[in-house]
Amino acid sequence: MSEAHGVMGDLLQELTKLPGIGPKSAERIAHFLLSGDRRHAKDLARVLLAVAEKIRPCRECFNLTEEELCSICRDPRRDAGLICVVETPRDVNSLERAGTYRGLYHVLGGRLAPLEGMGPERLTFSALVDRVRRGGVREVILATSPTLEGDGTALFAANVLAPTGVTITRLARGLPSGSSLELANAQMLAEALAGRRAF
Amino acid sequence: MSEAHGVMGDLLQELTKLPGIGPKSAERIAHFLLSGDRRHAKDLARVLLAVAEKIRPCRECFNLTEEELCSICRDPRRDAGLICVVETPRDVNSLERAGTYRGLYHVLGGRLAPLEGMGPERLTFSALVDRVRRGGVREVILATSPTLEGDGTALFAANVLAPTGVTITRLARGLPSGSSLELANAQMLAEALAGRRAF
Repeated sequence: MSEAHGVMGDLLQELTKLPGIGPKSAERIAHFLLSGDRRHAKDLARVLLAVAEKIRPCRECFNLTEEELCSICRDPRRDAGLICVVETPRDVNSLERAGTYRGLYHVLGGRLAPLEGMGPERLTFSALVDRVRRGGVREVILATSPTLEGDGTALFAANVLAPTGVTITRLARGLPSGSSLELANAQMLAEALAGRRAF
Repeated sequence: MSEAHGVMGDLLQELTKLPGIGPKSAERIAHFLLSGDRRHAKDLARVLLAVAEKIRPCRECFNLTEEELCSICRDPRRDAGLICVVETPRDVNSLERAGTYRGLYHVLGGRLAPLEGMGPERLTFSALVDRVRRGGVREVILATSPTLEGDGTALFAANVLAPTGVTITRLARGLPSGSSLELANAQMLAEALAGRRAF
């Protein structure tokens, strides 16, 4: 920008902080926001403030919601005996889009990463144990990411849940549906072999 | 989103209006903005409001600025005898990045598109003619897009400027530097041939 200092520079800086937005996209978006009567900039500012004020973690599962309890926790048709433990609210959305899960969720708020200062006290493990202790939960499904840190997080969750006696499961690993053997890496193939089922 | 109604739905809707942002990116950005203490959402809202309030068209050339006159029009080292006519403030940035132009600009505010209701009265042609009439301008370079509408816009500008007697030029057309003949389309090749120069 020829005038990338001042407020325009501030806007570009804020935009490039967004995931997936580089300098070029930021510039394109900034000019879009400033085109015409600036309505787009004002509208976006308005919803950002509304969202920052209204959206909060669900009291029960820590999913994002405008209410005390999120729409999933409020839904009487959901199976309250089943809790799926995920890292982030986005994971809840991914699983909901898959459309086959009918239980509740528990959002940890991230994954354990001790080197980055992400210790268990910053995640919602104790609230999870409290939920299970209150009773009525048959099974806790650990659905953290299939990565080193995700597995560490699941292991930690399994350990803190063990004293409650609840059944603990984790998502299956294997070949991604719709992919091909050619594209699978060694880890994926090893998991697929280890988890093989009767045909 | 499991909670894509309410303010979260509003935020997603505003984000997908931005150029280059689809539903997936919007969701990723929304969750980023809401992560942690919502500081990102509040900061972005703040700069959007500041920008919407402070940024305005330069009195002289209609480039975006926080001042009466933009930094280019204010710069005494720029050649005020040369005006480069572009469609948008982004075009000013592109030319400035190229770094070889030392004259001033004139931002039309778009291109003529009669079918979309973009007539000459919505662009800054009359301010351009006024600038030239005030004197001191040797040459007006038409730098509209190399498209049908851009060419129509340049033709219109040339017509309204003709009575002033100012020298009118347009950017060269030809093969894009760094490309290859293989990738050039018929139009590009025709322009390159028509504009050929002595070696």
